[in-house]
Amino acid sequence: MMNNYIKLIDENLEKFLQEEYPDNLFKSMRYTVLLEGKRLRPVMCLEFCKILGGNIEDALPTACAIEMLHAQTLIHDDLPCMDNDDFRRGKPSNHKVFGEAVATLAGDALLTYAPQTILKNSKNIKPETLLAILDDFFTFGGARGVIAGQVVDIECEGKKSFHTKENLEFIHKHKTGDLFRLAIRSGARIARTDRENFERADDYAQSFGLAFQIADDILDVTSNFEEMGKTLGKDAISDKLTYVSVYGIDNAKCKLLSLLEKCDNMNKDYNSEILDEILRGIGKRVNL
Amino acid sequence: MMNNYIKLIDENLEKFLQEEYPDNLFKSMRYTVLLEGKRLRPVMCLEFCKILGGNIEDALPTACAIEMLHAQTLIHDDLPCMDNDDFRRGKPSNHKVFGEAVATLAGDALLTYAPQTILKNSKNIKPETLLAILDDFFTFGGARGVIAGQVVDIECEGKKSFHTKENLEFIHKHKTGDLFRLAIRSGARIARTDRENFERADDYAQSFGLAFQIADDILDVTSNFEEMGKTLGKDAISDKLTYVSVYGIDNAKCKLLSLLEKCDNMNKDYNSEILDEILRGIGKRVNL
Repeated sequence: MMNNYIKLIDENLEKFLQEEYPDNLFKSMRYTVLLEGKRLRPVMCLEFCKILGGNIEDALPTACAIEMLHAQTLIHDDLPCMDNDDFRRGKPSNHKVFGEAVATLAGDALLTYAPQTILKNSKNIKPETLLAILDDFFTFGGARGVIAGQVVDIECEGKKSFHTKENLEFIHKHKTGDLFRLAIRSGARIARTDRENFERADDYAQSFGLAFQIADDILDVTSNFEEMGKTLGKDAISDKLTYVSVYGIDNAKCKLLSLLEKCDNMNKDYNSEILDEILRGIGKRVNL
Repeated sequence: MMNNYIKLIDENLEKFLQEEYPDNLFKSMRYTVLLEGKRLRPVMCLEFCKILGGNIEDALPTACAIEMLHAQTLIHDDLPCMDNDDFRRGKPSNHKVFGEAVATLAGDALLTYAPQTILKNSKNIKPETLLAILDDFFTFGGARGVIAGQVVDIECEGKKSFHTKENLEFIHKHKTGDLFRLAIRSGARIARTDRENFERADDYAQSFGLAFQIADDILDVTSNFEEMGKTLGKDAISDKLTYVSVYGIDNAKCKLLSLLEKCDNMNKDYNSEILDEILRGIGKRVNL
């Protein structure tokens, strides 16, 4: 089931982001967007649209746009002036292939290309809904969302006095959680669900996002390059603020377990094989 | 007259871009956006809205958003991996004050903050018009607009075989022209003008944009730091593709004169003191 979604998303990413002139710019944009990945955010967008009674065809442009936005954050996060990562999903980072200037510009380009993909391909979505989705896109993808999280993450790096629970929560909420919220809220909006179901979906998104990030923090300690496709153990070396650094690995696993259980309980109503598969996947990766 | 517009724009930029948490991110965004400047793009947006029968109050959020977008291009253009400029408008560049990481993220943030400013503050604009303005914003501000121009500009730097008239035209059209087109087209859309007047305004924008860039190319050769507030003579040193490098300074001045005359002629219908003041200002700066 999950693989069908991934195939659908990959086909549509290819369709929505074709090569144009200047070649190098579009090659760079495509390089990271089309890297093989789990496509969790667009899958969540499609699945919540379906769960809440919508048509997944209508959600495809938005789902793909959110994956483009995610790719943008990866390209810029990997830059030497940020996390300085040479690998991403087992391949050289964007700037290692295209150079820093083009990688920076490709990230910039995705930030406008993504919402335009929504705008140009959503014929069945009413203008008011479209504007609400774009508003969310700008909030969760911007200065009050994922970027706010990234800035605080950078500021906390290597500064023990900044390693507070409040900063940790802020980073997790925004840096990781906000793109899942964007994905799930957009799916719910496209399905035209009611207020109550919308709020529940948003609640699921926040719990899932936190679970995902805690799992990532645990894996940075316990996994290796072959499994993850990126440089690991970097959190400890660069003295990053993580769930593990604040609460220790046992508490991290305990918190993760309780979040996965919460999501699992909510899924009893949704009755979604996809959500179930994703939750089990996370539990399995960190050996819960 | 021009000064009234600049005052109005500065007040609204301040209003639309207030400091929030994380402080450093918003300080960095505000630093470049609020730098004293001529505000040509937002002025053009307001003035074309007025000329074509619209209410400039309705155009203020869009005008300010275009200035934010312009600031974004300046922040990223100045980065070490791009043009590596330490000064902008007579002040240290954004990354010299806030560091490369925050400057990169502040630029990213403006790319979503700007269209959200339009979306959140345009109560009097119909959703369809709003979507058309956002579509233009994504085109002219993105991979098919200003970023395409910047990529080709970088690729041509130092490579004589790339210094063709076609590449020069592409760079000028997109890197400089597209933000003026965005500004003027948006003003015209908000005024709800008819097709014919919209096309004429867009034509004016393209001629004006080219004139502005040729003037800039001439000034890089003939002006100095005190007059321009940025490092000059860099085009020749880094072997940039400019109108002057391809056609020589006399032909550049000749072309500039004919473009300014064309704009001046179109302005006979518009009868705009502001446009007149801007055109004369450009002519005066390059001593035409």
